[in-house]
Amino acid sequence: MIHLESDYNNGAHAGVLQRLVETNDVRSQSYGDDEFSWNARKLIREACGAPDAQIWFLAGGTQTNATVINSVLESYEGVLCADTAHINVHEAGAVEFTGHKVIPLPGHEGKLQVADLKAWLAAYHADDTAEHMVRPGMVYITFPTELGTLYTADELRELADVCRQYGLLLYVDGARLAYGLAAGGDVTLPLLSSVADIFYIGGTKCGALCGEAVVFPRGNAPSHMLSRIKRHGSLLAKSRVVGVQFEALFSRVGGATLYDLIGRQAIELAMRLRGLFVGKLGYAPYIDSPTNQQFYIIPNADLARLREHIGFEVWCPVDASHTACRFVTSWATTEEEIAELEKLLTH
Amino acid sequence: MIHLESDYNNGAHAGVLQRLVETNDVRSQSYGDDEFSWNARKLIREACGAPDAQIWFLAGGTQTNATVINSVLESYEGVLCADTAHINVHEAGAVEFTGHKVIPLPGHEGKLQVADLKAWLAAYHADDTAEHMVRPGMVYITFPTELGTLYTADELRELADVCRQYGLLLYVDGARLAYGLAAGGDVTLPLLSSVADIFYIGGTKCGALCGEAVVFPRGNAPSHMLSRIKRHGSLLAKSRVVGVQFEALFSRVGGATLYDLIGRQAIELAMRLRGLFVGKLGYAPYIDSPTNQQFYIIPNADLARLREHIGFEVWCPVDASHTACRFVTSWATTEEEIAELEKLLTH
Amino acid sequence: MIHLESDYNNGAHAGVLQRLVETNDVRSQSYGDDEFSWNARKLIREACGAPDAQIWFLAGGTQTNATVINSVLESYEGVLCADTAHINVHEAGAVEFTGHKVIPLPGHEGKLQVADLKAWLAAYHADDTAEHMVRPGMVYITFPTELGTLYTADELRELADVCRQYGLLLYVDGARLAYGLAAGGDVTLPLLSSVADIFYIGGTKCGALCGEAVVFPRGNAPSHMLSRIKRHGSLLAKSRVVGVQFEALFSRVGGATLYDLIGRQAIELAMRLRGLFVGKLGYAPYIDSPTNQQFYIIPNADLARLREHIGFEVWCPVDASHTACRFVTSWATTEEEIAELEKLLTH
Amino acid sequence: MIHLESDYNNGAHAGVLQRLVETNDVRSQSYGDDEFSWNARKLIREACGAPDAQIWFLAGGTQTNATVINSVLESYEGVLCADTAHINVHEAGAVEFTGHKVIPLPGHEGKLQVADLKAWLAAYHADDTAEHMVRPGMVYITFPTELGTLYTADELRELADVCRQYGLLLYVDGARLAYGLAAGGDVTLPLLSSVADIFYIGGTKCGALCGEAVVFPRGNAPSHMLSRIKRHGSLLAKSRVVGVQFEALFSRVGGATLYDLIGRQAIELAMRLRGLFVGKLGYAPYIDSPTNQQFYIIPNADLARLREHIGFEVWCPVDASHTACRFVTSWATTEEEIAELEKLLTH
Repeated sequence: MIHLESDYNNGAHAGVLQRLVETNDVRSQSYGDDEFSWNARKLIREACGAPDAQIWFLAGGTQTNATVINSVLESYEGVLCADTAHINVHEAGAVEFTGHKVIPLPGHEGKLQVADLKAWLAAYHADDTAEHMVRPGMVYITFPTELGTLYTADELRELADVCRQYGLLLYVDGARLAYGLAAGGDVTLPLLSSVADIFYIGGTKCGALCGEAVVFPRGNAPSHMLSRIKRHGSLLAKSRVVGVQFEALFSRVGGATLYDLIGRQAIELAMRLRGLFVGKLGYAPYIDSPTNQQFYIIPNADLARLREHIGFEVWCPVDASHTACRFVTSWATTEEEIAELEKLLTH
Repeated sequence: MIHLESDYNNGAHAGVLQRLVETNDVRSQSYGDDEFSWNARKLIREACGAPDAQIWFLAGGTQTNATVINSVLESYEGVLCADTAHINVHEAGAVEFTGHKVIPLPGHEGKLQVADLKAWLAAYHADDTAEHMVRPGMVYITFPTELGTLYTADELRELADVCRQYGLLLYVDGARLAYGLAAGGDVTLPLLSSVADIFYIGGTKCGALCGEAVVFPRGNAPSHMLSRIKRHGSLLAKSRVVGVQFEALFSRVGGATLYDLIGRQAIELAMRLRGLFVGKLGYAPYIDSPTNQQFYIIPNADLARLREHIGFEVWCPVDASHTACRFVTSWATTEEEIAELEKLLTH
Repeated sequence: MIHLESDYNNGAHAGVLQRLVETNDVRSQSYGDDEFSWNARKLIREACGAPDAQIWFLAGGTQTNATVINSVLESYEGVLCADTAHINVHEAGAVEFTGHKVIPLPGHEGKLQVADLKAWLAAYHADDTAEHMVRPGMVYITFPTELGTLYTADELRELADVCRQYGLLLYVDGARLAYGLAAGGDVTLPLLSSVADIFYIGGTKCGALCGEAVVFPRGNAPSHMLSRIKRHGSLLAKSRVVGVQFEALFSRVGGATLYDLIGRQAIELAMRLRGLFVGKLGYAPYIDSPTNQQFYIIPNADLARLREHIGFEVWCPVDASHTACRFVTSWATTEEEIAELEKLLTH
Repeated sequence: MIHLESDYNNGAHAGVLQRLVETNDVRSQSYGDDEFSWNARKLIREACGAPDAQIWFLAGGTQTNATVINSVLESYEGVLCADTAHINVHEAGAVEFTGHKVIPLPGHEGKLQVADLKAWLAAYHADDTAEHMVRPGMVYITFPTELGTLYTADELRELADVCRQYGLLLYVDGARLAYGLAAGGDVTLPLLSSVADIFYIGGTKCGALCGEAVVFPRGNAPSHMLSRIKRHGSLLAKSRVVGVQFEALFSRVGGATLYDLIGRQAIELAMRLRGLFVGKLGYAPYIDSPTNQQFYIIPNADLARLREHIGFEVWCPVDASHTACRFVTSWATTEEEIAELEKLLTH
């Protein structure tokens, strides 16, 4: 059985685990002021080409989104996003819990289009009743999106331009950032650091046991960020548990970071999977995803046979006899698994 | 240098770390539905003698307090506690952030006295304007308290009786529970399970890298607890990271759990420390604490010499020439360290 | 100049004002426990045929919506509504401020369609990730809608059936209820009282200086409602100021209440307005509204001439040469004004 | 029976009611943009000697406190006040509902002492764990206090100095401001406008049917205040209902405003009441209040006889045979009533 259900069903990447073991007995400061966290911050700043970046380590993605959004918005502001965005659908209302409206715009394979954003903002600012509406304060996007798709560098620049024009912050949720950066597009950490006002580098889905790194790339964090994080219940006493992991993830092996390598391997295997499903088995892609989340249209008649060999997720029905399914590679997927799958399914 | 500043400056206890390593490559369900978490729940239920207990694993203490309190209180209810309580002083307003008032009563060496509670409740219920006030919905206590002191079983039973009489929930914050249970008092996990409506078993300060176990001992959790936890940003995708650690902490070695052993060792060393400071060096205790947080009154003239050998925390000035200081043992403190300290200070 | 901009630009109906004057010197209890409020409750219960109804008087509509919704939903629940709903667009995020997500479904001329609701609920309950989503707890509709349209009694019954099937509350915002009840449809206060779980009877837009009456028609208000209202800042010390006005609005003049008469007059004049704009001047309706908000498509070339005689609101452009405009009658609009308008525009 | 239970059991002062009647048929803008509100703002600015003051009209006191406090504090800040403060005791947690901690300091006959404030702030800023605590952002006082006492101008200046030194806002709740200004002290509206950062002028308890005027005396309101007020549900569509009343209250009759006259009459009668109770009947004052709330110690044996003639409130028991009682004069109390009382009780 090859498990492709999701990218958070294993422990940590061996390199991350090893660093947890080797630092375990070192005594350190608490609440993020430990040597591992400071070293991780230094490594992340270097990878981002952002020497002034301020960085905090939190435990999980929903927590990070709620804490960041509530920390940087004015009380009367809301956050614009694609209707499929994680904060709009799958965070149990964590953002609204902090008092802020999530304002969905139509998503296009998970992406927010700059034309939709511009049209919405123009209409809002032309509306005489705007003061009675929730003021837009932020654009939230995910990279990669919930549907595995990617923005190009130009698309991000355009979104950032619109944000600056209208006084909005651009926030990028990078829960699966490793896979997005490795997928052959033109978006890099330095590019993200120059277009986004805030982003987070996902750990949980990219090789860590837990943890995400929030980056304010231009030293632009709001005042008393530690108190804000604490008030959200997001401050770990032993914040080092995340710091140590990011230290491992951003350490360099040759020219690349472990974070790079984790992304590359998962993408390489995702592309082999696509070769198998689309090229050899002739299934159509449901969404044309270049990242570790792959979506194919499977004839219902084939589902049972696939289930014998693979764990995967049913996404949605396509028609009476076809179903869209999601197959996810991760840092924990191996070449051997994919090779075996090829043998099993083409045989 | 012997470090007695606090109990959250190391990684994890070796037994906990080992279990993280040995389970790392096992694939599991996410969001707390993994085999390790289910086994940990079973072990905790057994240790508590509470077969119907419902248990969730969260990442940290402040998060746990805010999530629990907001999940079980009605919107118009507040929480009563000692004025020194962690939720009243050191959580950056995390409970108020969820909309609930923290109502402080006078603490007595960190403890809430049943007489104060009764008097306050009687006055509240006799007040004609009660409907204009925050309704008391919960009593929050810590075991051990922030000052290292302990309630007796009888004191807990009395508090619980008052709570039942007035329709309040009794919630016990057990951030340092291991040390409280091992301190020679008459409070046990089964006793806690019978008197408290909710309590949490602290991991972070008692040998885990991170994590706390929330226990609803009589199957009395509110509906949709998973959604509530998620909405607070407290649900880890890889919740197993905490589950695995509690599985280790509640595994038995001989008749005792690792959690018991961790508590015992720290208490034994804390008592040796007391023997040294009070018995041999003749310092007076500032608070008579039977647990791992020890408070002594140190002549200011001796502070510099102590600082050469020990890391500790200044608590507060006592008079012009004396200072109360806190010395904390933990699972990470060793016999060798205390023996060395004895040699250094009595020599 | 005839003012048809909106229905909240005057003071109070003469009958309401008179009652404020004649009761002014009577000393009474505060916080809603005064004789006028109790009499108003009795009159409203009679008008609703709901002897067990619980009724509170609040100052304004947004406040009422936020207070009601937050009082009856569980913390993890959200509220479903049409995308054009007042709570989704024009309350500056007051509902989200209380921590609840507003979940918009497509509106059809301001109305929520039972088919859309059913489809959404079926999809939600079929979703494996439902516990990670905001749970639907309420359906919010307005009667009349923001676009002047009305539900039929059958449509309301169908919505109520779906709500009961899925365990949702049905809440009806009646900011302009007087105009909806008088518009010749088959919805009455007793019908509303039997299908809705909560509704409010609008005062501010229907002849009062301020104030709305929240009705829990079957004695189904949550516990400690007074404290909940107070906590939202919605409890007036002199709550009688609203009670007195509703006493006047629900006093009977012949067989009808003043509230009935206020609605009827505005609707009669709205229909004369439609006769003038659609029948005589040949403008097309933009929305076919049977209530006091009328929407016509005006050739841009005619706008200036209209503006000489009438105050109205531009709604939205229709095409390059036409604009949809809103004309609102109210209890303050007079026959003389409409007659004069007819003369001016057809002359 | 002479009613001295409280100052919010009548309708409006005749002069306020008359202005509501005479403006009733004038059509106006909504949401506070009406001619009456603008004129009221002008009159208040003149009375305050504060030409740059920004002023909003809200419906009630608790709403005003919650809206103001949440609008000006940073999310992680709390508000310091006396333990007897209205926001700490009698607002059902409305401030905590907005996410902010209310931090009580010991009250001295209802007043916050500058020495207590300084000591608390010094301790907070010396605390190494301050970032884990709620940061103080505001000092809230009431003028007069809940116990009828008054700050002197010098005391207010001292409080303001401490606030400026520590970066706190000084907010004055003036629910009963008319009575405080008329009580012969040295505090005036211009003084308040120079020392306070925000204050509100109470209407409800000082002659209005409802309504309070929030003043930012130096044009120092936060951005988008209208949206903030709306989000709190505190924006009346017919905000003019409050504007008209404040226009009446701040219109001048001879050199004095109606607000002055209302205060003076109530204070004059309160002093006559004191002459009767303390001077003639020999009762001791419970608190030495110079304002319209009078507190006397009544022998229990006399309570029944008093109750035959007067409505009043039992405040608290003093000893086995004496009870502290509160007697409140207001704009609605008449000379004839007090004269009659003198006759009845001294006879």
